[in-house]
Amino acid sequence: MTGKFISLEGGEGSGKSTAIATIKAWLESQKIDYIMTREPGGTELAEQIRQLILAARDEPVDDMTELLLMFAARAQHMTQTIRPALAQGIWVISDRFIDSSFVYQGKARGGDTEKLKVLTEWVVGNDKPDATLLLDVPVEIGLQRVAQRKDADRLDQESSCFHEKVRQGFLAQAALEPDRIKVIDASQSLDQVNEQIINQLNGLKSAW
Amino acid sequence: MTGKFISLEGGEGSGKSTAIATIKAWLESQKIDYIMTREPGGTELAEQIRQLILAARDEPVDDMTELLLMFAARAQHMTQTIRPALAQGIWVISDRFIDSSFVYQGKARGGDTEKLKVLTEWVVGNDKPDATLLLDVPVEIGLQRVAQRKDADRLDQESSCFHEKVRQGFLAQAALEPDRIKVIDASQSLDQVNEQIINQLNGLKSAW
Repeated sequence: MTGKFISLEGGEGSGKSTAIATIKAWLESQKIDYIMTREPGGTELAEQIRQLILAARDEPVDDMTELLLMFAARAQHMTQTIRPALAQGIWVISDRFIDSSFVYQGKARGGDTEKLKVLTEWVVGNDKPDATLLLDVPVEIGLQRVAQRKDADRLDQESSCFHEKVRQGFLAQAALEPDRIKVIDASQSLDQVNEQIINQLNGLKSAW
Repeated sequence: MTGKFISLEGGEGSGKSTAIATIKAWLESQKIDYIMTREPGGTELAEQIRQLILAARDEPVDDMTELLLMFAARAQHMTQTIRPALAQGIWVISDRFIDSSFVYQGKARGGDTEKLKVLTEWVVGNDKPDATLLLDVPVEIGLQRVAQRKDADRLDQESSCFHEKVRQGFLAQAALEPDRIKVIDASQSLDQVNEQIINQLNGLKSAW
């Protein structure tokens, strides 16, 4: 029996790190074998590609360059980490996956969704996540949370308008694939957010 | 008047470095403004991508990962280096370009030529080189030349059968686009090879 593949998505400050801790605790309580991974990243080479993408640099980065780097990392992640784990019955939890590409490289920058679809077909094919938990939070709350952190990188340094496009982009993705993408109201209290997440996990396990 | 765009192609040990020196001397004798560049590479970011592609590593590199890294570097090279130079009337000489992708990521590894065509259309479009000089040499001669060098990298460490596929792949590319790709017999003496190259350059300049 193959493992379940879960991705976490959400804009800046949506609480992904906290959600990952919740998911990890639940998987351990259920004695389910799992790996935690992230995008861009998830293999040594893919993490090196991540560093190239996120580094602050003077050279302007062409949108197509960023898109192809993201999918290069994803191809490596799929073939070396995700597919082998799932085949062994191990659950895979990925911090970001394809929906981030459709939002960050696509909608929020006016990018070309057709190219994203072609690359997704080549690299991911039928191996989309069984469930994607979208942590949704109003932009002002998310940005307040980010302002309290110190690890702001290039993608954090965007305008508030950009972050609003990101939020609407994710919600539009969820509207396109409501069976896969579960919207979690992340503006609620920590306990309430955790409860929503665990409900989704219990649903996935009962279908396993 | 836009500059001319020339790429150099050839398998291991075909004499590209010597050819580049010949071209450089000719451009200077003609007082033509030019830049010398290479693939993968040609910008700071693209050179960093090159390092990821060429590094020896334990992690298997998926063919799709390598293909997308190549085109990510190329997108950056096209938008930040090649197109701006040509627009200013500067000639661009690139050590390797699209034909290397069709050969190394395509034919020689049984790769998917259709994906290469799609990526080339996205990244290069109508800006293919005005001329491509293909330095053709029998595999045994090329490999003897390489054996005398010390900087063998991952792509050098392939079998003789692979190098034969590379040679035939380049010749097949030349057969597909004979107007663009000029086959230089690189097994001849240095003087004879230089003469073939300079004849091609004179032809390009007279059409400029």
